[in-house]
Amino acid sequence: MYGSIEAGGTKFVCAVGNNKFDILEKETIFTEEPNTTLKKVFDFFDCYNKVESIGVGSFGPIDIKKDSSTYGYIKNTPKPLWQNFNFLEPLRKRYNIPVGWTTDVNIAALGEATAGAGKNMNNVLYITIGTGVGGGAIINGKILEGFGHPEMGHIKVHPHSLDNFTSICPYHSNCLEGLASGPTLEEREGKNREDIKVNDSVWDFIAYYLAQAIYNYTMVLSPNIIILGGGVMNNAHLLPKIKEELLKIIDNYIKIPPLDDYLVTPKLKNNAGIIGGLILAEKQQQNNKF
Amino acid sequence: MYGSIEAGGTKFVCAVGNNKFDILEKETIFTEEPNTTLKKVFDFFDCYNKVESIGVGSFGPIDIKKDSSTYGYIKNTPKPLWQNFNFLEPLRKRYNIPVGWTTDVNIAALGEATAGAGKNMNNVLYITIGTGVGGGAIINGKILEGFGHPEMGHIKVHPHSLDNFTSICPYHSNCLEGLASGPTLEEREGKNREDIKVNDSVWDFIAYYLAQAIYNYTMVLSPNIIILGGGVMNNAHLLPKIKEELLKIIDNYIKIPPLDDYLVTPKLKNNAGIIGGLILAEKQQQNNKF
Repeated sequence: MYGSIEAGGTKFVCAVGNNKFDILEKETIFTEEPNTTLKKVFDFFDCYNKVESIGVGSFGPIDIKKDSSTYGYIKNTPKPLWQNFNFLEPLRKRYNIPVGWTTDVNIAALGEATAGAGKNMNNVLYITIGTGVGGGAIINGKILEGFGHPEMGHIKVHPHSLDNFTSICPYHSNCLEGLASGPTLEEREGKNREDIKVNDSVWDFIAYYLAQAIYNYTMVLSPNIIILGGGVMNNAHLLPKIKEELLKIIDNYIKIPPLDDYLVTPKLKNNAGIIGGLILAEKQQQNNKF
Repeated sequence: MYGSIEAGGTKFVCAVGNNKFDILEKETIFTEEPNTTLKKVFDFFDCYNKVESIGVGSFGPIDIKKDSSTYGYIKNTPKPLWQNFNFLEPLRKRYNIPVGWTTDVNIAALGEATAGAGKNMNNVLYITIGTGVGGGAIINGKILEGFGHPEMGHIKVHPHSLDNFTSICPYHSNCLEGLASGPTLEEREGKNREDIKVNDSVWDFIAYYLAQAIYNYTMVLSPNIIILGGGVMNNAHLLPKIKEELLKIIDNYIKIPPLDDYLVTPKLKNNAGIIGGLILAEKQQQNNKF
């Protein structure tokens, strides 16, 4: 039995699953201050003493450098109580089993690359557009990492000539997250996302920024597939707009895969991350065997 | 003994080397029309009947999809005579040995990642800034490929407010190659690159565009190292300018590795590509054994 934690800034999802990555039990916990939240995570996993390893995908930025003194920590997140919180150690200490550690978007990417839309492809990109914007890539079956994890939501985009909106990213005046994340919809329109009309021009702006970013990801990674998840993508009229903008930008320069195969939504739907966490748990357990 | 071909738009370099990737013989051929050029390549390799496999890194775009009917072809290059030229087949037919096939920048990346500045790192990015601009990445020892090869030189950049120059890329009005490749220096200044003064503002523009691109590559790939090669980088005053611009853009958002370790020039100098070709030849030979 494997455990999985999808640790988001708004909610945590905890689950246990079998070695076919079927979810057996699942619980959602709202994200409060770290110790309260972790207590509820413990309450969940304490009931399952057959869990052999846990995979954690956390909101970030996080420290994934194994030789770092702050490995397993959440770093300079905008959530002050979670800054420099050592997430990994309490889990390891309590259960004394292998714990895999990566970003929330990386476990979703791992889920989709292993058991979802990117199955059997060697270069799978997963982008989430929600409260934040992030991306993870699975290259030849492994999570793409280097000096740290990617920060794909913070690539620079060119402002739309009709969009007067000021980026809400505290760090960047013209990054994707600052101009196209979920909260920018509400801030632009002064109303809930659900109340924004399908023909509102704000969707053109969002599609314009996402297409620019997807163009750049394509030039850098040449992925076999790009899976677009997160709450904002639940607006089904957005994906066709993004495709239209992407075609304009590519303008026959390179031949990408057929667009309906190239840009898709998650096959595992909202379970991409939590299933990816189970897969990460298995990988971590296998790495620990010697 | 391995063979290596670095096939550039201006010149071809052919070499043979041993299994330690020492170059034993090397010859430079100016790129003419395809059959004349290939005849000279044959003249070189015909003298070495102990070559067991050849690695080719070609200017592009090229077709690297093994299941494609045009695998091994050069595609829509601006050089009309080379468009849709089947490069790989004549080589395979003549020597009847394994031939590895990738882009010119990918062999340089492979050389540096295996035997140069990126040795023992699992995520190595190589960028060339010359007649064209391109990038290749070696992830966990393998060349990064997906639906095709990366086209990193064609990512979008934001025009510098003081730069009135019009992109020379036939496809894009604001891509890196169109604004920061070698020929843009000459076109902006109306003189040879060697005659442009160190304090000319054109270097600020080039550094500004390269830093933007490097920022975006960093957000997408999180590489352990970025190696900057190609003729334009021979201007030693450019690298410090790029570093300065990159620090401005990053603005403490994320902690990258120490800048002097992160942004470097090729350790193998001008031989990165040709040595990478020898390494590709060895990989291809090993893949063909079964």
